[in-house]
Amino acid sequence: MSKVAIVMGSTSDLPVMQEAVDILKGFDIEVMVDIVSAHRTPEKLFEFGKNAHSQGFTVIIAGAGGAAHLPGMLASLSPLPVIGVPIKSRNSIDGWDSVLSILQMPAGVPVATVALDGAKNAGILAAQIIGSQDSCVLDKIVLYKEGLKDKVIKGAEEVRKN
Amino acid sequence: MSKVAIVMGSTSDLPVMQEAVDILKGFDIEVMVDIVSAHRTPEKLFEFGKNAHSQGFTVIIAGAGGAAHLPGMLASLSPLPVIGVPIKSRNSIDGWDSVLSILQMPAGVPVATVALDGAKNAGILAAQIIGSQDSCVLDKIVLYKEGLKDKVIKGAEEVRKN
Amino acid sequence: MSKVAIVMGSTSDLPVMQEAVDILKGFDIEVMVDIVSAHRTPEKLFEFGKNAHSQGFTVIIAGAGGAAHLPGMLASLSPLPVIGVPIKSRNSIDGWDSVLSILQMPAGVPVATVALDGAKNAGILAAQIIGSQDSCVLDKIVLYKEGLKDKVIKGAEEVRKN
Amino acid sequence: MSKVAIVMGSTSDLPVMQEAVDILKGFDIEVMVDIVSAHRTPEKLFEFGKNAHSQGFTVIIAGAGGAAHLPGMLASLSPLPVIGVPIKSRNSIDGWDSVLSILQMPAGVPVATVALDGAKNAGILAAQIIGSQDSCVLDKIVLYKEGLKDKVIKGAEEVRKN
Amino acid sequence: MSKVAIVMGSTSDLPVMQEAVDILKGFDIEVMVDIVSAHRTPEKLFEFGKNAHSQGFTVIIAGAGGAAHLPGMLASLSPLPVIGVPIKSRNSIDGWDSVLSILQMPAGVPVATVALDGAKNAGILAAQIIGSQDSCVLDKIVLYKEGLKDKVIKGAEEVRKN
Amino acid sequence: MSKVAIVMGSTSDLPVMQEAVDILKGFDIEVMVDIVSAHRTPEKLFEFGKNAHSQGFTVIIAGAGGAAHLPGMLASLSPLPVIGVPIKSRNSIDGWDSVLSILQMPAGVPVATVALDGAKNAGILAAQIIGSQDSCVLDKIVLYKEGLKDKVIKGAEEVRKN
Amino acid sequence: MSKVAIVMGSTSDLPVMQEAVDILKGFDIEVMVDIVSAHRTPEKLFEFGKNAHSQGFTVIIAGAGGAAHLPGMLASLSPLPVIGVPIKSRNSIDGWDSVLSILQMPAGVPVATVALDGAKNAGILAAQIIGSQDSCVLDKIVLYKEGLKDKVIKGAEEVRKN
Amino acid sequence: MSKVAIVMGSTSDLPVMQEAVDILKGFDIEVMVDIVSAHRTPEKLFEFGKNAHSQGFTVIIAGAGGAAHLPGMLASLSPLPVIGVPIKSRNSIDGWDSVLSILQMPAGVPVATVALDGAKNAGILAAQIIGSQDSCVLDKIVLYKEGLKDKVIKGAEEVRKN
Repeated sequence: MSKVAIVMGSTSDLPVMQEAVDILKGFDIEVMVDIVSAHRTPEKLFEFGKNAHSQGFTVIIAGAGGAAHLPGMLASLSPLPVIGVPIKSRNSIDGWDSVLSILQMPAGVPVATVALDGAKNAGILAAQIIGSQDSCVLDKIVLYKEGLKDKVIKGAEEVRKN
Repeated sequence: MSKVAIVMGSTSDLPVMQEAVDILKGFDIEVMVDIVSAHRTPEKLFEFGKNAHSQGFTVIIAGAGGAAHLPGMLASLSPLPVIGVPIKSRNSIDGWDSVLSILQMPAGVPVATVALDGAKNAGILAAQIIGSQDSCVLDKIVLYKEGLKDKVIKGAEEVRKN
Repeated sequence: MSKVAIVMGSTSDLPVMQEAVDILKGFDIEVMVDIVSAHRTPEKLFEFGKNAHSQGFTVIIAGAGGAAHLPGMLASLSPLPVIGVPIKSRNSIDGWDSVLSILQMPAGVPVATVALDGAKNAGILAAQIIGSQDSCVLDKIVLYKEGLKDKVIKGAEEVRKN
Repeated sequence: MSKVAIVMGSTSDLPVMQEAVDILKGFDIEVMVDIVSAHRTPEKLFEFGKNAHSQGFTVIIAGAGGAAHLPGMLASLSPLPVIGVPIKSRNSIDGWDSVLSILQMPAGVPVATVALDGAKNAGILAAQIIGSQDSCVLDKIVLYKEGLKDKVIKGAEEVRKN
Repeated sequence: MSKVAIVMGSTSDLPVMQEAVDILKGFDIEVMVDIVSAHRTPEKLFEFGKNAHSQGFTVIIAGAGGAAHLPGMLASLSPLPVIGVPIKSRNSIDGWDSVLSILQMPAGVPVATVALDGAKNAGILAAQIIGSQDSCVLDKIVLYKEGLKDKVIKGAEEVRKN
Repeated sequence: MSKVAIVMGSTSDLPVMQEAVDILKGFDIEVMVDIVSAHRTPEKLFEFGKNAHSQGFTVIIAGAGGAAHLPGMLASLSPLPVIGVPIKSRNSIDGWDSVLSILQMPAGVPVATVALDGAKNAGILAAQIIGSQDSCVLDKIVLYKEGLKDKVIKGAEEVRKN
Repeated sequence: MSKVAIVMGSTSDLPVMQEAVDILKGFDIEVMVDIVSAHRTPEKLFEFGKNAHSQGFTVIIAGAGGAAHLPGMLASLSPLPVIGVPIKSRNSIDGWDSVLSILQMPAGVPVATVALDGAKNAGILAAQIIGSQDSCVLDKIVLYKEGLKDKVIKGAEEVRKN
Repeated sequence: MSKVAIVMGSTSDLPVMQEAVDILKGFDIEVMVDIVSAHRTPEKLFEFGKNAHSQGFTVIIAGAGGAAHLPGMLASLSPLPVIGVPIKSRNSIDGWDSVLSILQMPAGVPVATVALDGAKNAGILAAQIIGSQDSCVLDKIVLYKEGLKDKVIKGAEEVRKN
């Protein structure tokens, strides 16, 4: 069964990254959450990156802020798809640093980048990756999208009433 | 067997997007290439987006420039993972428009964005998505990454000789 | 008689977009307000976009934030003039994403873009479009502009007093 | 009958602005082309802006580069809808100056801004404004959009052949 | 005797622009303060710009936010040196719009631009312009600069004590 | 009689800065041209900055690229008005570095900044500063502005002919 | 023994720069703290810059905001390595001005730039520079890095518990 | 004796990085040049980073483009001072990606960043770091700075002749 690794550079990234955890649990997908800092625990980064695919993970979600090297280094080390979440950290320059240092990977080593602070979308994307080859999860995605639609339709009704 | 749809907004995007085609063919993954313009063929966009997952596609790669709506609209219509390639088109403002209009999707509807003009990485990411659940493709990714390494090692030898 | 459709991607856009509603009502122009999400209700987007010109609308005002595809997709679907309001949503990168994904439309499919959060101006522009061919509305625009002037003149008097 | 004024800050803007002229002529809409510089011929700016609506114009298209004040000043002077075309002039900072000085108008005085160097779209938007209240022109817009679609469809066929 | 005109687009700019008033009064230079909106009172703009040099003004200071056309239009109308103060107004995109629409004037029509919200510096610059040909004012500038130095020296002493 | 000092950080800036020389000579204003590098000849910078006002200069024009410190350091050292010309040097990041390091001076020490590569405008501004207190130069500015107007009017005639 | 000079443009920079002081004291490295304003105390800047290497300093750390010329001017005057700390001051444009005016130094005169408000890293870098030739300090750096690692490992344990 | 390691992510970075090699050789400082790709040879990155300080290197210079992780990862692995050179690679977004992903390192792990493509300055900075504790190298830096000055003085003489 598919399992998603959700790692981030610092405990201070957890409030943002929790949304990825929650949405994946909502899809009944198993998650593992850990702190792996590219700049402070490089050995852990290496060990985790090198072995993730042998330990049963299907997808890696990595969130980091500022000069965010965690997603790209994991993409360097692992053959698995890596989803990067740029986080607008405390002294970030409006988020541009995290976005560009995750997105602009050189040819050969992609990171699937989502929006700034877009951990929820990272979780959904991980589910879609699993669902692309697991019809049971795909059905859940279809249902989830129906739910999004219903919520908008209801909001629209409220607006028209007023 | 897995199949990847590679669509783009205009024939002028083909030189960039061809790299996605080539790398996927190199991994022996079947591809379908088409022109789908969100702004000029919205009906085709809808039909393709609504049906892609029933037609055997596993992943969608969508490239577009400027106010690039194709990847996001396909992500809206399809439950499949959508990889977006921002293209630096002729009157783009240095590529920022394509990058931001693909990357900054709202919560609920992710696009897996790669670097500006990064179609090769889009192809690799699609292979990784398939490989995450297909060990035969995963092995090819591992080999591909070995190849990247060897090329750097050889380049390094050249440099040290001089 | 002319009628303006004011649509937005989310109920959270309503506080910004209300200014368009108010200014148009002030010009005695009929408005219809609805929530249409390009990314969560694509079918509603299509139906609305395809039919707006047959349903008696003269102009469409569309507001959206982040990777804002609603105005551009409506411009793709409708032959009517579409006014786009970039909204600085919660996780927007300082508004640049909404501005660029609305403004930088490809040749063939224009969106009349106004300033960030500029819903009031979107309403005035809609009135000007109607007024360009309806002298009664044009006169109201002329009066409105006189009102702007008077307010500045009065403010100037206050300043000179102090 | 409707008539569109196409003005620009300098003769050097003509190669860009010619696209607006051509597309409007293609829709059989009468155009008047003139050079009006906000910074070098302010009296002409005033006279033109004050009188455009009495001289039978329906829409004004104004193109300018750098600190582009022409569109906004015309919007200040005229009750007509003003379409602004940001032009990437020789010493522009990548076009950002023209885009922002046209787009970010204060509340009360909108400019309908199109993409950088997007004169063609300015022409189409002018036609759409006229078409919003002139069914004959609206029909031409519908046809024009069909033409855009056909061209993409043909391009797609070419791509699939190869 | 020299006299400085300090104008701004809106009463809401006064808190920022007051610093120019205060510093000039501190140099015993006469000031006139007024609200002149390029977009809402274009006639007043014209009259003021055309006549400022005949009414005894030596320098014009103009502050404006967003698509800030006031300084540039005054530079268009008047042969006097115009100092532009970009103001970070409420819906400005981080001040970039005001900065670029004041700074990037075309060849032939300069605006002496100071820092974002830099009204104090605008006042000092006006005094320096007067001082460049009036040794009494020049002496005051020299003294003012001595005062700046003394304040830093005292601050440094405080820091070294702790 | 008034005299303008035109200094720049490097001989490679001369092609841009020559425009300031030419326009001032055209106004019969005496100029002195020199290379003064803030980063390579700091002693010369100090000596020049400290003494410029005693040596008969009325205005200083300083051009520099990249991290452009020359204009601001001269403004620190001299009580004269300093006009800064941001130059888009070879490894500049699109000119943003020069613009911001000249424009964003702290309170107390203004630099009158002109457009990127706007040396011509720096020359005109210097003339306007002199003209603000010298009616003979003011008359030349008025004439110059008439010339700008005439050229646009002629260009407009050409355009209307075609 | 090695000694580090920590200077900044204003007492208002002290809260940011204190982190450099603290970290260096933690490494038992002697520091001297002073206020040196490039724009308000240019003579002090010169004297300090010219003599720092003769007064026993090994490294200079300089922090400044806005058009930040202090680090670059010290690099101009001193043969010592200069570390620049861009500070996001009150009217900075999101920090871009400080970053670019410190980073983009011309060839010949480097400034070792750290992250926006990154005074702590400036202190560590100064220690590393000393440690590069002083094994005792190098050992402390190695220990410090171990400490960083331990803190992450502990944070990770906390996260896994919840 | 001091030795500098100069590494870069790709052989295509060599033309830029050669300037660091040349300037250091000019200072008679020993250099080692190698290709180390963070994303394609992560093991080599680790081995090199972990051992550089034991192998007699004093300073590391690392150049990389796009999402440039090499300098930051070396700073993570090594206690030595790491100088980062942002390189404007082929599909870089105007160099912003390399600049931000090298500069904006988190607290604890500094990279001494130099200007875009500023490899020459990286070499000088490395020499300054060595010179900060080696008076023989310091003297060479002082001489080098004299040379810079002389070249400007000569250039200034040329300019004054014409």
